[in-house]
Order: sequence, then C-alpha cells, then structure tokens
Amino acid sequence: MSLVVVGTMAFDAIETPFGKSDKIVGGAATYIAWSASNFTNSVKQISVVGGDFPKKELKLLEARGVILDGVEIKEKEKSFFWSGRYHLDMNTRDTLDTQLNVLANFTPVVPELYQDCEFLMLGNLVPALQLSVIEQLKNRPKLVVLDTMNFWMETAMGDLEKVLKKVDVLLINDSEARQLSGQYSLVAAAKTILEMGPKYLVIKKGEHGALLFHEEKVFFAPALPLEMVFDPTGAGDTFAGGFIGYLAKTKDISFENMKSAIIVGSALASFCVEKFGTTRLKELSKADIDDRIQQFKELTKFEIELE
Amino acid sequence: MSLVVVGTMAFDAIETPFGKSDKIVGGAATYIAWSASNFTNSVKQISVVGGDFPKKELKLLEARGVILDGVEIKEKEKSFFWSGRYHLDMNTRDTLDTQLNVLANFTPVVPELYQDCEFLMLGNLVPALQLSVIEQLKNRPKLVVLDTMNFWMETAMGDLEKVLKKVDVLLINDSEARQLSGQYSLVAAAKTILEMGPKYLVIKKGEHGALLFHEEKVFFAPALPLEMVFDPTGAGDTFAGGFIGYLAKTKDISFENMKSAIIVGSALASFCVEKFGTTRLKELSKADIDDRIQQFKELTKFEIELE
Repeated sequence: MSLVVVGTMAFDAIETPFGKSDKIVGGAATYIAWSASNFTNSVKQISVVGGDFPKKELKLLEARGVILDGVEIKEKEKSFFWSGRYHLDMNTRDTLDTQLNVLANFTPVVPELYQDCEFLMLGNLVPALQLSVIEQLKNRPKLVVLDTMNFWMETAMGDLEKVLKKVDVLLINDSEARQLSGQYSLVAAAKTILEMGPKYLVIKKGEHGALLFHEEKVFFAPALPLEMVFDPTGAGDTFAGGFIGYLAKTKDISFENMKSAIIVGSALASFCVEKFGTTRLKELSKADIDDRIQQFKELTKFEIELE
Repeated sequence: MSLVVVGTMAFDAIETPFGKSDKIVGGAATYIAWSASNFTNSVKQISVVGGDFPKKELKLLEARGVILDGVEIKEKEKSFFWSGRYHLDMNTRDTLDTQLNVLANFTPVVPELYQDCEFLMLGNLVPALQLSVIEQLKNRPKLVVLDTMNFWMETAMGDLEKVLKKVDVLLINDSEARQLSGQYSLVAAAKTILEMGPKYLVIKKGEHGALLFHEEKVFFAPALPLEMVFDPTGAGDTFAGGFIGYLAKTKDISFENMKSAIIVGSALASFCVEKFGTTRLKELSKADIDDRIQQFKELTKFEIELE
C-alpha cells in the first residue's frame, strides 16, 4: 500500500502585502509531501529537480518517511522557478516570472517500487504528464485525485479532458470551476464538471472554505477565520496533501470520510499560510494538528431542536 | 413581551441577470416582519408608508399576527421607492433610483403598546431615527440588534457611532465590516468593531455564509449552495428577521443560541432569493422551514475521531 504523489519540487520567490521572500523551496509535490506525511509514512514522490535543489531539503523529506526514488535529479540543470506577487485579498496574484528549467523536458518515470500505489495524488502539472503517470501504473489505484489550474484549461484543454475522465476526485478553486464549466453558479458548475469524469469535486474558496460535491450531495467546509494570511503560496497543495494523506491513512473513500478529509486538509492549509513557504509545515506537531482540527469542529457546531 | 421592528416598508423595482420586476412591495421592515413572524406572533412594526402602499399587504401582515399600530400611513404622500440592478455575482448592485417620499420627514413614534419591547430589531434606516426609537423606550430591551449599510457610514457616521454604542448585536456584510473598521482581515475588523459598542458582530458574506464574533469566540455559518439566486433583494433583512424571530421565540441570548439563530436566519434568507420580492416568503410552511434547517445541519456535519 502506498500513496504516490506527482508534482513539482521547485523554487519560489514571493511578494505579499506583508513581506517578500528570497528564492525559497516550494513546488506542489513538496507541499503535498510535507502535509500528507503527517498522516502516512508511505508517501512515494515523483518529481524532477536541478542540481541547485538543496540536498538538505530532500533529506528532511526522507527523514519523514517520504520515498524519493521517483525524484529525478538533473545535476547540470536548474530547478523550476516561479515568482509571484499577491494582491491585498490574497486570493489573486500576478506571476512575475516562470522559468521551466528541468520541467521543460520532464518525463515522469514510475519506479517499479511504486507499483503498489493505492492512492495517487496528481499535483498541479502539465496534464499530459499527469496522464502518463496514470498510464504507467499496471493496476488502477483505489483513488486518483487531480489538482490542476486555469493555465492548463487555456493551453492544454484537450489533454486535461482526457485526464479528467480517469480521475475520481478533482480539486480546483472557485474561479477555475467557473472557467472549466462555463457556469457562474458553483452548484451548476459542479453538475457540469461531474459529467466530465470525476465522481467527486472539491471547490476551494480560500478564506470562504470549500465545497464537496458528489452525486446530489454537498458538504460545506469552513475556513478558519485568520487575523493574518502571511503567504498563501502552497495552501492549495497543502490542502491536497492533508486530504489525500488522511484518506490514505484511514483507507476509507466514502463521502462521509471525504468530508473529514476536507476538514483535515483545511486545517493543514490554515497552518501553511502563517509563514513563508514550507516553514510552518516543518514545525508542526501532532498536537498542533489535533488542536486545529478541534477548532474546526467548534467553528461550525450548532444545535437546533426542531419541534 | 414583544419584538419591535423598525424599518422601511416600501416599493422596489429590481433588475437581475435573470429578469426584471415591476414596482413590487419591499422594504427592510417588510422582509423582517415576514421572516420573524414564522417564529413569534409578537411582532410590533414601526414604519411609514404612503397612500399608495397596498392595504392588502398590511392586512396580510396583520393576518400573521404583526401589529401595525406603529406604522404611520400618510395617505396623501407616496411610499419610499428604490430601484436597482444586480451584477452577475449577485453580491454587488447599482442603485438606479431612490425616491425618499414619506421617508423624507419620517419621525418614528413608539406607541405606548410597544413599551413591553424585549427584543428590538433596528432595520436599515437613518441612524438618527434608529437612535430615536431606542431613546423612546422606557426600559432597555433585553436585546437590541442593528442593521445598517455603507451609505450611512459615508453620510451619517457620527450618528451611527452613537447608535453602535447602544446596541448588542450588529449585522453587516463583509465589505461594510471592512469599511467600518478600516481593516481588511475580517478577524481584525471584528476586533475593531467589537470595541465600538456591539458585544456581538454578525458578518454576512452572501453565498459564502456568515461569521459570528463575540469576545474571543467565532462561529462560521454556511450558506446553502444554490443553483440559482433569482433576486437577492431583502435577503439580508430576511436573515435579520429569522435571527431575531428565533431569539425572541427561544428567549435565549447566549452565544450558543445565537449560532442557532444565524442558521435559522440563513435558512430563511435562502428561501427569499428564490423568487422576486417577498413572494417566496409568503408561501412558506413550517415544514418547508424545518426541512431547510435540516439541510443546513447536513451541510456542515462531519466526524473526525482524534486519536
């Protein structure tokens, strides 16, 4: 049994209204691995980095039980780099620079060791590469979760449609759900998207929480009201990592357990935004996480006796 | 024991992306009375209308037990009129026309019969008039709830600050909370606003639900994900009516019961937006409301066992 994670491991440079980071370690798969490894020590990573990616960062992940056999290191090349500036609302951002570097010619190879994959987390990446990983697995995983973004809807919609047909759960944000479906109402958007392939749809709404749709059912997960969002980079990936990490740990992919997994993902994401990059995720104890999940329980609990 | 409601009873003409209404009956106090009277038959209304306001509408409210002794009818004048056009997001709107008419020289008079007021709902209105009602009551009500809007923050901030010092609960939307506090984060905004007078603050976020703040506590109420919001006019007033109607019925003003009251208000508001004006509110049965509240329960319920 294992959880296979596919995605970027990279460098980011971030500007927010509250500060500016140097070039720091980021990438979807990095955040997912840090988050998921709180729940399962069976994380098997697929990614690519350049010779500039700190070996120490790889060792820190290995120390948490993350297996890196599927992480290709191209010593003579540079890691993927993204730079962006967040607006005051922290939900919108401008990309300042993107350097593909190692990602330009990346062909993910699934190691033999990874063929026991039961849970597959396809982090945000070129849809054709996500598809290639699905196709390399000899047995279909129990659950395939896909993260993607508006950029691929604009540049690789054909491939994205193919991937959508092969996944169980799609994670996107509200504006992406509107773009993908052409529907403004999120309920209408969900209906359209659930006809494109996924059986479950999670719409992430940042500070407004998240919605889970499945057949005719819907679940509304709150976000923790925060006094300050310091850096939202990686929050969506951290959410994905908590979500699939919890599912991999509990091995229960019912709608009811997915509700719990979304709360766990939201709790992890609420830590991520407190400091730059992966800093806060590296400090977390089990007690921190349990306390935060307890806060989520209290946040939405109410009683009404109907006569 | 009674619930006194102060606010406009008026005409609206509404344009939404889905349709356009003729001049229809509206006004904050109209929506509040329709909503609150589902829970208590002790609603005592204070308002002013012109000779053009349909007598039939007044009779319909009386048939629900709403007492109209405090509603002044100026037969020779015209009722307050507002016309607006909603944008696609249904959260923002342009005012097309405002005709004060009877409201221009309105001086609310609290009838002697209303002096048993235990719950006071100050619907959106000129802050000086809201203040005048508070001052006319010989005994302070058990709970005073205030609704207001950005317009008064811009044109009557001095009076609004005076009212804020005399109320227990303030209901505003997210952009108004930001404007009133000068803070972007809603958590920071809530801290600032709770220092201005109210002990409880409800921030309404439309399709994103509502937040209740009190001391260090916070509650996150979901909104029902709707396929179509037909007309959002009066949703905030309907929310207020459900909120105070439930509190007046249960006579419990604890934080725990306010959480329930917010869910009830949200449930009522979710009906209001389904049709133009008060149409949907007039059709509701107790079973409809109970079913909707049950949906809210299911919407946010989750279980996570912490080890």
